[in-house]
Amino acid sequence: MSDSAQGLIGHLLGALAAIISLVANPLQPTPAQASDQEQAYRGSVFHILKDPSRHSENAYEYIEDALLVVKDGHIKKLAPYHSERSKLTPGTTVSDYSGMLIMPGFIDTHIHYPQREMIAAYGKQLLEWLNTYTFPTEKKYSDAAYARSQADLFLEELIRNGTTTALVFTTVYPISVEALFEAAYTKNMRIIAGKVLMDRNAPIELIDTPKSGIDQSRALIRKWHGKGRLAYAITPRFAITSSPEQLQAAGTLKKEFPTIYVHTHLSENTDEIALVKKFFPERSSYFDVYDYYGLTGPRSVFAHGVHLSESEINRIKQTKSVISFCPTSNLFLGSGLFPYRALKDKGVRVALGTDVGAGTSFSLFETLNEAYKVNQLNKTSFSPIEGLYLATLGGAKALELDNKIGNFLAGKEADFIVINPNSTPILQARSKNSKNLEEKLFALMMLSDDRSIKAVYIAGKKVETQSRKASP
Amino acid sequence: MSDSAQGLIGHLLGALAAIISLVANPLQPTPAQASDQEQAYRGSVFHILKDPSRHSENAYEYIEDALLVVKDGHIKKLAPYHSERSKLTPGTTVSDYSGMLIMPGFIDTHIHYPQREMIAAYGKQLLEWLNTYTFPTEKKYSDAAYARSQADLFLEELIRNGTTTALVFTTVYPISVEALFEAAYTKNMRIIAGKVLMDRNAPIELIDTPKSGIDQSRALIRKWHGKGRLAYAITPRFAITSSPEQLQAAGTLKKEFPTIYVHTHLSENTDEIALVKKFFPERSSYFDVYDYYGLTGPRSVFAHGVHLSESEINRIKQTKSVISFCPTSNLFLGSGLFPYRALKDKGVRVALGTDVGAGTSFSLFETLNEAYKVNQLNKTSFSPIEGLYLATLGGAKALELDNKIGNFLAGKEADFIVINPNSTPILQARSKNSKNLEEKLFALMMLSDDRSIKAVYIAGKKVETQSRKASP
Repeated sequence: MSDSAQGLIGHLLGALAAIISLVANPLQPTPAQASDQEQAYRGSVFHILKDPSRHSENAYEYIEDALLVVKDGHIKKLAPYHSERSKLTPGTTVSDYSGMLIMPGFIDTHIHYPQREMIAAYGKQLLEWLNTYTFPTEKKYSDAAYARSQADLFLEELIRNGTTTALVFTTVYPISVEALFEAAYTKNMRIIAGKVLMDRNAPIELIDTPKSGIDQSRALIRKWHGKGRLAYAITPRFAITSSPEQLQAAGTLKKEFPTIYVHTHLSENTDEIALVKKFFPERSSYFDVYDYYGLTGPRSVFAHGVHLSESEINRIKQTKSVISFCPTSNLFLGSGLFPYRALKDKGVRVALGTDVGAGTSFSLFETLNEAYKVNQLNKTSFSPIEGLYLATLGGAKALELDNKIGNFLAGKEADFIVINPNSTPILQARSKNSKNLEEKLFALMMLSDDRSIKAVYIAGKKVETQSRKASP
Repeated sequence: MSDSAQGLIGHLLGALAAIISLVANPLQPTPAQASDQEQAYRGSVFHILKDPSRHSENAYEYIEDALLVVKDGHIKKLAPYHSERSKLTPGTTVSDYSGMLIMPGFIDTHIHYPQREMIAAYGKQLLEWLNTYTFPTEKKYSDAAYARSQADLFLEELIRNGTTTALVFTTVYPISVEALFEAAYTKNMRIIAGKVLMDRNAPIELIDTPKSGIDQSRALIRKWHGKGRLAYAITPRFAITSSPEQLQAAGTLKKEFPTIYVHTHLSENTDEIALVKKFFPERSSYFDVYDYYGLTGPRSVFAHGVHLSESEINRIKQTKSVISFCPTSNLFLGSGLFPYRALKDKGVRVALGTDVGAGTSFSLFETLNEAYKVNQLNKTSFSPIEGLYLATLGGAKALELDNKIGNFLAGKEADFIVINPNSTPILQARSKNSKNLEEKLFALMMLSDDRSIKAVYIAGKKVETQSRKASP
């Protein structure tokens, strides 16, 4: 049977599974429905239209006093307040966020949900950190109730930080993936995740097999991929913890579902790279391991890529694979200084990730602060426009979701955040002294944290978090 | 006349000036007086007893349920709550901070008060950043009222972040020094500062002369050095902006007042170092410029020292001079990775600074976060005990104030802070999962910010800030 026929059958089976799932789970909560009443939001609006590192002009739009009109969970229109106000459909509610900045929701292209509880674990570099902290923590996620409660807290924390879309690592346990998807489905949040594949070099409780790993992944794909706003990512932890057989099977699974993602780690730490060479002596490079087994491509996201060779960079570009730049993690684990500008200049697709729990913050603002610092140490430029591109439209493009999210073009899904540029005394002082938009956005990028996120809307619906309710 | 006779006369004149000042300014606000009533504070108490990098045992004391007893603005006793409670003087108020962590106030050994308003200015490395942002900002501080209002906001921000002592850059204008000292005197805060000396390579409005700079400095020393908890630092901006004549005169002034500090910059950026070599071709190194002119010694604090040669390091050690490590600034300006462990191992006295406004946070917690990351990138260790040493007792030792502040030994001044280890959802999650004190302190160091500072006491008196009052 040809690959495309296999893919078609896979799709039909997936659709069938989705129908069966809907019939079998009539009481399962449906996504929060956006009001079909038109809603409008007044405030300063900033969004990115093109990659600013490729287009120096018209890369973004900023309207000081704007009206963002939302209907059925989608952007209907963005226009200056004074011209648009009179044209609103009668009965439209206008929420007034004057003095605030409205931006597209943030997109985090690499984060581990079970590591929320072990963020900032002390004192190791990558491989020892995995054994000391990560694996013991992930064992707890075989418990469905525990996993679900943690998934809820994880999504809350994303929202508190203005992140509305994320590509997420779970654990080897399918139940931990179910927990995250269920939690995200209830919130109607655009989450991409998958079961971790790991059949060697890890504690026995966390080990699957080439067959069980793929069977479980396939079942999860059929149940969740394309359901609501959810999507699935085949998720080998990294080359060290998957046998050639498992990677081979993962590559075959990718062919079976052409719209599926791949999410893994690449070239983070020099000891890790040496170990990959030891386990795959027949492959020409770390990236070549994934490439050989058919795991690269436009929907494949590789976290880190700190120490890539020229030939790896060329091949990453050829395959249109994506590298997720995770600065707070690279600094926290001492992995190295990501060559951001060099990769961009070579045409590699680069996105942004927090990599919590090795990353030290859920906030993409705080992540951009350190992205800037990494570029300063590399003596390369990194503008706030470019930073905010990475956190919004750049992330959407990296996930091939820029037809759905990433900016406020009419028809896109209404995931947006309201930012208070005066959330702390220092931010207030800086905002007052900023001479232009770029300085103002730079101050936000360097000084903001979760406190600047005043409100979050997912598919047009305002989301309240427990902690937001607790401290207004 | 001999140097020592000159010094004596200088002292006598200084004392006379202080008396005249008191008589002439009877309405000047006096320092906030600590209550002479005994006060006690219950909570978990952590403080450092010795440099943990030199003493692996008994470097700190932690009492889970402690009573910190304060009288007349000084520490009277620290003891376990249950043994001490019954021994309190009748009538002593006990403030209950159970569940909170009480620590000595933080000490920031390098910060610029006029740069609060230009923190996170966009996109340059050191020399261009000075010309583009710093000098234009500092010109505003020739206005006494403006300088005073900014000084108040600056001290507020220090306090909001738990910093009770700082070594502070001002501007060339004596009035800007007066403003800071007046504001600090009113708060009874331990602040060390001095007029910036700068007689070349800066805008004309910011230029003094060898004579005017020294005359103004001497007058400020006589008025403020030793008044209340204040002290003076001779403050050449850096070698590039002072002529040999000015540095010579500064060295002479230092001899005149043996208890005076010196505060300047050293070896931050490679272009800066090249320029120093150009301006001082006859000197063997950047540090040698200061050394030659008599500006080095145990009360001389040099910010940065990122790119020091072996011979400079040896001489820094010989002179017992101090290097202030400013990680958020070194990353923000792309200056480089400070060789912290190497300098400590060689016996150099190292302290911690935020270097706001090139530093990106007033918080010594956030500064320690990046100090850890710099060490990780250098592949060197940096424990939370060592970090908190730098932020407290280490800073006190660097400023030769460890007989007065830095920990809770009986008789020291009662500058202390109350830390909420659950100030954010993420900190709460981590605190709950910390297995021991070191992990708990590490989580604080990596994840805390100003929100963790629940209360601040200066010389035994609780200090309220405007912003603290506004958002409880």
